[in-house]
Amino acid sequence: MTIQSFYPPQRTLMGPGPSDIYPQVLQALSRPTLGHLDPLFIGMMDELKSLLQYAFQTTNPFTIAVSAPGSAGMEACFVNLVEPGDKVIVCRNGVFGERMRENVIRCGGEAVLVDNEWGEPVDPLAVEAALKAHPDAKILAFVHAETSTGALSDAETLAKLARAHGCLTIVDAVTSLGGVPLKVDEWQLDAVYSGSQKCLSCVPGLSPLTFSPRAIEAIQQRKTPVQSWFLDQSLVLAYWSGEGKRSYHHTAPVNSLYALHEALVRLQNEGLENAWQRHAEMHQSLRAGLEAMGIRFVVEEKSRLPQLNAVYIPDGVDDAQVRQTLLEKYNLEIGAGLGALAGKAWRIGLMGYAARNENVALCLKALEDVLK
Amino acid sequence: MTIQSFYPPQRTLMGPGPSDIYPQVLQALSRPTLGHLDPLFIGMMDELKSLLQYAFQTTNPFTIAVSAPGSAGMEACFVNLVEPGDKVIVCRNGVFGERMRENVIRCGGEAVLVDNEWGEPVDPLAVEAALKAHPDAKILAFVHAETSTGALSDAETLAKLARAHGCLTIVDAVTSLGGVPLKVDEWQLDAVYSGSQKCLSCVPGLSPLTFSPRAIEAIQQRKTPVQSWFLDQSLVLAYWSGEGKRSYHHTAPVNSLYALHEALVRLQNEGLENAWQRHAEMHQSLRAGLEAMGIRFVVEEKSRLPQLNAVYIPDGVDDAQVRQTLLEKYNLEIGAGLGALAGKAWRIGLMGYAARNENVALCLKALEDVLK
Repeated sequence: MTIQSFYPPQRTLMGPGPSDIYPQVLQALSRPTLGHLDPLFIGMMDELKSLLQYAFQTTNPFTIAVSAPGSAGMEACFVNLVEPGDKVIVCRNGVFGERMRENVIRCGGEAVLVDNEWGEPVDPLAVEAALKAHPDAKILAFVHAETSTGALSDAETLAKLARAHGCLTIVDAVTSLGGVPLKVDEWQLDAVYSGSQKCLSCVPGLSPLTFSPRAIEAIQQRKTPVQSWFLDQSLVLAYWSGEGKRSYHHTAPVNSLYALHEALVRLQNEGLENAWQRHAEMHQSLRAGLEAMGIRFVVEEKSRLPQLNAVYIPDGVDDAQVRQTLLEKYNLEIGAGLGALAGKAWRIGLMGYAARNENVALCLKALEDVLK
Repeated sequence: MTIQSFYPPQRTLMGPGPSDIYPQVLQALSRPTLGHLDPLFIGMMDELKSLLQYAFQTTNPFTIAVSAPGSAGMEACFVNLVEPGDKVIVCRNGVFGERMRENVIRCGGEAVLVDNEWGEPVDPLAVEAALKAHPDAKILAFVHAETSTGALSDAETLAKLARAHGCLTIVDAVTSLGGVPLKVDEWQLDAVYSGSQKCLSCVPGLSPLTFSPRAIEAIQQRKTPVQSWFLDQSLVLAYWSGEGKRSYHHTAPVNSLYALHEALVRLQNEGLENAWQRHAEMHQSLRAGLEAMGIRFVVEEKSRLPQLNAVYIPDGVDDAQVRQTLLEKYNLEIGAGLGALAGKAWRIGLMGYAARNENVALCLKALEDVLK
C-alpha cells in the first residue's frame, strides 16, 4: 500500500476550536525553519514574549508559550504550583473544571469542589463559602470561559476573593484570550494558561502561559521537585529568559512559534479592545439570526461568551446528520455538544478570524437551509 | 512599540536538529486547517499511524505521535511505565541518559545507573551485570543514538539482555529513527520514542511513539494512576484508536501532523533501506573531507552515527567565532557541543533532507575557508 500526500479541503471552522486561521498565519508557519538557538530565532522569541504580555495585559516577566496544546498548559500550572497534600478549591461548571480536578489529584493534592450547573458561571458566593470553610486552601482554580458550555465567569471577582483568603489563582483562559476582556495584572491573576487555536486564530499546538511574581515565588519555595520534567517551568525559564545565553531545555516548535508570533502581530495591529468589540458585534449578529429561527441559547445573556455560542438543538432534529450536511455540503464545521451537553447542544464558534460577517452569514443561511 | 512580521532567512541546518526540512513538508504544513474531529482529518491520522509503523518497523497497534517535542515523548514512556518504587536500570553515556534518570526519579522510581564515557556506546557486559545484580528491576532504559555525542548503541543486544532478565525496555530513538536501522518488532523493543525534527526532516514539535503489547499490558496492570493527565496514554489511545468514533482528549496539532504525514510519505517513497544507505554514504563523504583537514571524530568508527558527526574542535580554534561566521557568512548552522563536550566538540548533522551532496560540499568548503 502506498500512501499519498494529503490535501485537505478549505473548511470554515466555526466549532469550539481550532478556529479559522488567518491566511497570514499559515504563510508564517511555512517560512524556513531556523535552529532553536539561532540568534535570529531568539530575537523572535523575545518579540513573542512582548506580544504575549500585551495579549494577557501583563508585565509578568514569566510569560511564554508552552510547546504543547492547552491541556499541557493547564498541567504546567498544576504541576508547578501544587505539591502533595496541598488543598485546591476547584470550580466545576463544565468539562474543563473537571479536568482541573483530575490534575489536582494526579499532583497528590486535595481538591475541594465548588459545583455549578453546566451553562452557569461560577458562583462567587459559593466560592467565598468554600474559601471560608477551608482556610488552609492554597489555590483557587477556575475556568474563565468554559469551552464546553459557553459560560463566562467573573475572573476579577473570583481572584479578589482568592486574594482576600490568601490563595493563589489558576485560571483557564483557553477560550477567553483575545475574545473577551482578560486583564491579568489589573485583576491580579496568578497562573493563567490559554490555547493558540481559539481567539488568536493560530494553529493548534501551543499554550500561552503567564505566571505572576507571586506564583514564581511559590514555585521557588517548593519542598518537592516538580513531577514533570518537560513541564518544570524552572527549567524552561532558562531558555525563555532572554538574558544572555539561552540554555537548551527542549527543541522549541520553531514553525508553530512563527505562526503564533504572526497571529499576535495581527492582534496587536487590530488592538485588543477592537478585537473584543468585533467578537461582541459578530455574536449579536449571529444571535439575532439564530433567535429568528427559534433557536435558544444554553447560557443566560449576562454570562454568554460572544466567541462560543452554545445553543440547544431544536426538537426532532438529528444532531449528527445536520453537522455532517453542513460539513459535506457547505464545508462548514460547527461543534457538537461535549459531556453533559452531548447530543443536546451545538457549539458555534466565532473565534478570532472566524468572527467575520461572511462567516455569520454562511452559518445562518446554511443552518436555515439544512433545518428547513 | 510595534512589532513586525518575522521573515527568517534560509539557513542550511546541519546541527543536531532541527534538520533541513523537506520543502514539501513546509508546503504540507501550511495547508488549510481541519477540525481535529473532522472525518477527513481522522482518515489522515489513520494513514499517519501506518506510516509511523513502517518507519518504526512494527505492527504495534499503539503507534502514535505525541503532541509535543521528543522530551515529552520520553516522559510519556516513563510516566506510563514507571510506578512509585519501581526499579529502572538506566544507561548513561550522554545528556539524554541523564535525562532518563531524572524522569525515573520524578516518577518516584529508583534509578540504577550503568555509566559509560561520553562518546562510547552502552556496554552490554555492564548492563548484563546490572541486570544480574538487580533481579527486581522492571525496566531497562537506554539511548539508541546519543544526540549529545554521536554514539550508536546496540539496541538489539541490549533488548535481548533485558528480555532474558524479565525487563521491559524504554528506548530513545530520537536521532536514530530514519537514519540508521531501527527494528522495533525484530528487536522486540517495548517503548520507543523519537522526534520529528531529526532524520524525518519534519518541523520540530512532535514525538513519534510506539508501545509493544507487553508495554500496554504493563500499563493496564498499573496500581496507581499515571501522574500526568496530558501524557496518560490510556486516555490518548481512545483518540488514536481508529475504531469507530474518536473521543476528545486534547486538540491535536493539526498542521504539524500534516507535516509529519508528508515527511513519512517521503520516507515511504524513498524506502527505509535507501534512506539508511544515503545517510551512510553522505557520512563517508563528509568524513573523508573532515579527516583531510585533520579533524578527528569523538566516537570510534564502529559506533559512529552517520547522521550526527561529533568532531573535536581543532586546537587554538575559537568555537563560538567559527560557528558564528558559518551562520552569518554562509547561512550554515552546525551544532555546539553539549554537556561534557561543550566547547570541545562540534556536532555536524546529516539528518534526513540534510544528508545530501550539496550540504556536504557546502559544509566542507565553508569550514575549510573559516579555519584557514
